[in-house]
Amino acid sequence: MNGAASLVHTLLKSGVDTCFANPGTSEMHFVAALDQIPGMRCVLGLQENVVTGMADGYYRIAGKPACTLLHCGPGLANGLGNLHNARRARSAIVNVVGDQATYHRPFDAQLTADTEGFARPVSVWTRTSTEAAHVGPDAAVAVQAAREAPGIATLILPSDSSWNEGGVVAEPLPVAARGAPDPAAVKGAARVLREGRNVLVLLGGVALTDAAQLLAWRVAQATGAALLAEMSNAKIARGRGRVALERVPYVADVAIAALARFEHIILVNAKAPVGFFAYPGKPSRHYPENAAIHVLTRFEQDAEAGLRALVEELGAPEAAVPDPGPRPEVARGAPTPEGLARTVAALVPEGGIVADESVSFGRGFYKETHAAPPHDWIHLTGGAIGDGIPLATGAAIAGKGRRVINLQADGSAMYSLQGLWTQAREKLPVTTVLLSNRKYQILIGEYHGVGANPGRTAMDMLDLGNPDLNWVSIANGMGVEAARATTLEQCGDLMAQSLSRDGPFLIELVI
Amino acid sequence: MNGAASLVHTLLKSGVDTCFANPGTSEMHFVAALDQIPGMRCVLGLQENVVTGMADGYYRIAGKPACTLLHCGPGLANGLGNLHNARRARSAIVNVVGDQATYHRPFDAQLTADTEGFARPVSVWTRTSTEAAHVGPDAAVAVQAAREAPGIATLILPSDSSWNEGGVVAEPLPVAARGAPDPAAVKGAARVLREGRNVLVLLGGVALTDAAQLLAWRVAQATGAALLAEMSNAKIARGRGRVALERVPYVADVAIAALARFEHIILVNAKAPVGFFAYPGKPSRHYPENAAIHVLTRFEQDAEAGLRALVEELGAPEAAVPDPGPRPEVARGAPTPEGLARTVAALVPEGGIVADESVSFGRGFYKETHAAPPHDWIHLTGGAIGDGIPLATGAAIAGKGRRVINLQADGSAMYSLQGLWTQAREKLPVTTVLLSNRKYQILIGEYHGVGANPGRTAMDMLDLGNPDLNWVSIANGMGVEAARATTLEQCGDLMAQSLSRDGPFLIELVI
Repeated sequence: MNGAASLVHTLLKSGVDTCFANPGTSEMHFVAALDQIPGMRCVLGLQENVVTGMADGYYRIAGKPACTLLHCGPGLANGLGNLHNARRARSAIVNVVGDQATYHRPFDAQLTADTEGFARPVSVWTRTSTEAAHVGPDAAVAVQAAREAPGIATLILPSDSSWNEGGVVAEPLPVAARGAPDPAAVKGAARVLREGRNVLVLLGGVALTDAAQLLAWRVAQATGAALLAEMSNAKIARGRGRVALERVPYVADVAIAALARFEHIILVNAKAPVGFFAYPGKPSRHYPENAAIHVLTRFEQDAEAGLRALVEELGAPEAAVPDPGPRPEVARGAPTPEGLARTVAALVPEGGIVADESVSFGRGFYKETHAAPPHDWIHLTGGAIGDGIPLATGAAIAGKGRRVINLQADGSAMYSLQGLWTQAREKLPVTTVLLSNRKYQILIGEYHGVGANPGRTAMDMLDLGNPDLNWVSIANGMGVEAARATTLEQCGDLMAQSLSRDGPFLIELVI
Repeated sequence: MNGAASLVHTLLKSGVDTCFANPGTSEMHFVAALDQIPGMRCVLGLQENVVTGMADGYYRIAGKPACTLLHCGPGLANGLGNLHNARRARSAIVNVVGDQATYHRPFDAQLTADTEGFARPVSVWTRTSTEAAHVGPDAAVAVQAAREAPGIATLILPSDSSWNEGGVVAEPLPVAARGAPDPAAVKGAARVLREGRNVLVLLGGVALTDAAQLLAWRVAQATGAALLAEMSNAKIARGRGRVALERVPYVADVAIAALARFEHIILVNAKAPVGFFAYPGKPSRHYPENAAIHVLTRFEQDAEAGLRALVEELGAPEAAVPDPGPRPEVARGAPTPEGLARTVAALVPEGGIVADESVSFGRGFYKETHAAPPHDWIHLTGGAIGDGIPLATGAAIAGKGRRVINLQADGSAMYSLQGLWTQAREKLPVTTVLLSNRKYQILIGEYHGVGANPGRTAMDMLDLGNPDLNWVSIANGMGVEAARATTLEQCGDLMAQSLSRDGPFLIELVI
């Protein structure tokens, strides 16, 4: 057996059965092994940032890693933006990168690059398998490393390690469960909650599952503490029966005002809120300078166990989540953020997934969508725009029929629009609502913050009009049916029709 | 003056007057400075790999660096693929990357990443300006470093260095001329040429200007040596009046056969030919094991001076380049590589630029295009596909009206298709011939090399059909007029029409 075959067998044994791929010449033996060994679903992306973003979306919904198949250092480089987002989402990915044969590398052929150097900033684990016999065992360690962190484990596969005989299939390695909560941290948090006033419990990461939310709700009800979610969440359970959580606001002044009253912040797999960016004369920290920060559970710990221990420590009684009121109806008239949110709430099916890269338009979407049926919501986590279409695509692969609604800003969509083609090829149930404002609206807002109105040169760098992008043509060109809407009722009609289809549909909503 | 203003003034003083941009929030003060200080042409790309590829194409035609404007580590990461190609082309680029404010960086906000770590593998020089007063002087060094190598100089600009007062405009720094040839190397090469049999003079980089070619021709005529160009050339002067150079072949067996007879290889700013990739049982070196390698001039030396010294050392007389025969006519019938090459030769205007990312289809284009009017030809240099559209765009910006014909493989086009929008916005004279074979043809060829026919899973990763990309729709969606051709005469008609237009046009040639 060659190294490539040992890789495929080892990945399958370790439970990795989906491969997001954009292969090149140096990966042909891996492609051949995937072809010859049944069991791996292979999904092609036409640019690497689509591939890595799909792997991120897949993990967020499947809860287990997929592998990637990328081509040499530059192929990896093309996918780093969404690996950055996956790193911030703490998504597990087994990131397989082909490379020059070990003996060919010193000749510095055109595609030779610092593959490990590109990988390290985004990876929790990076290794080059220099012999066929190492590939299987290294792959088993890669799966273990990716799942345990969770994070990105990059396995670099020189082509001779792939084609040489001597491959060995490795058994799956044990993956340690998330760390148990620290009893002292639980007692400390309970003390703060009992004694403190103005306490915020901030939930992030795996503290945003429905089970963890309900425990946090009991804590809040028993103690009067406030609850918030972080601003950028990998996945948050939302809708009826879940807690009507709001997020820490994005805009610095708004966030600072929202957090001003808190004297204590208890972090549950979350980070103390800081600015996405710095601004002259504004603090980096968005919480009050003299607020005390308490950590209930760290990122790698079990948030649900921590919250359950806290509930027990406090003796917090069962507490029902309040009814969020009637389900909204499809809105009418000119598109507004609130109206679009109500329309999504009216139509998202139970068990649906919302992939949100709406950027500036979508900051208030939560408020109007609490009364929707239960669904999952996934965000851009690392700020590297161009994640929405790939995330939606990977989530749809993992969702096995769950409908995905991708709320997608136009400027961001352009970074990874190739993902639409994969949606068409795989006939995925993705409805893209393309928010077409024809500008980098967030940047125009930021420009005003500099204290000036943008002139012609600045607008040349902030305006996506001239010419306007025609998203119906672009989507059609990649095999995705599409239509334009200028009112919310048109958008609602198209969205409702799209939900009964098997494959993808794109609505260009002119906002 | 703030740091951002000092940067713009310093760049302009150093002769950098074109900025390829994809800014973000942390670059708003730089955008404002570009807006307020006249003199910098700013060109927006809707994804960073378009931006960096444009900067590469610009340098190849303008012969001087542009600057970029990229957003934080992930924005830089998105542009690394074409920075890799630019590194292999030895293009000078002043690569300006915004970043978190120095004091905000420790808070590890979402977009914080290892910006320097991403930059170093592609850069000859990397520096973070940590104070406003350093920005101007650092920018002057960046221009010097980029021009002198030539290569990529990455200047990282934390947002507080940009917005703080205390900026200082720096004077341009001297740039050393290319190194003079080594007299011993010239004498050594002359001795080999006089005594040796089966000598190849291999030209690369700046040995491919028309002046250098004519000197190399005199050497070859006087000594009987063979001449070849490297396989991947940053820019090569071609057409009538230039030497009818062929390239070292791409395919290993073909290259090995073509080079088998040579006992001596004299490198003029070139590398001894090695395989693009390794293959089982085939050598990495494509020249004979016992061939002697001689270096006339290294990459950083003056090739033309080296060849002139060699001409003088040999006393090689003036020698006219043979007439390449009549200019071909537009071909007819089903598209073939030879027919398309003849069609290009029939229509490319004098002084035109051919941007060639034709990959497998275009390996024989040179043979049929020698009798075209004088033109420049630029190649994918680093093998990181997705360079053609951005290169063509940047070349058109630098060309100030020179027509660019982009011979563009479809699979590769998908990596950076966003560049079409920039062509439309800037109304650039680019004719794209989109070679639509709806597969990764090069990879299917490589797969057969593995010794098997691709099965369904393999074809799922090698085939771009299902659904077919509709390039007319895609181009229209980005504001570029387009039409489909299925015969060479249709292609020729459309190409001829496109040449009289002001703006871009895309021909989807179904091959």
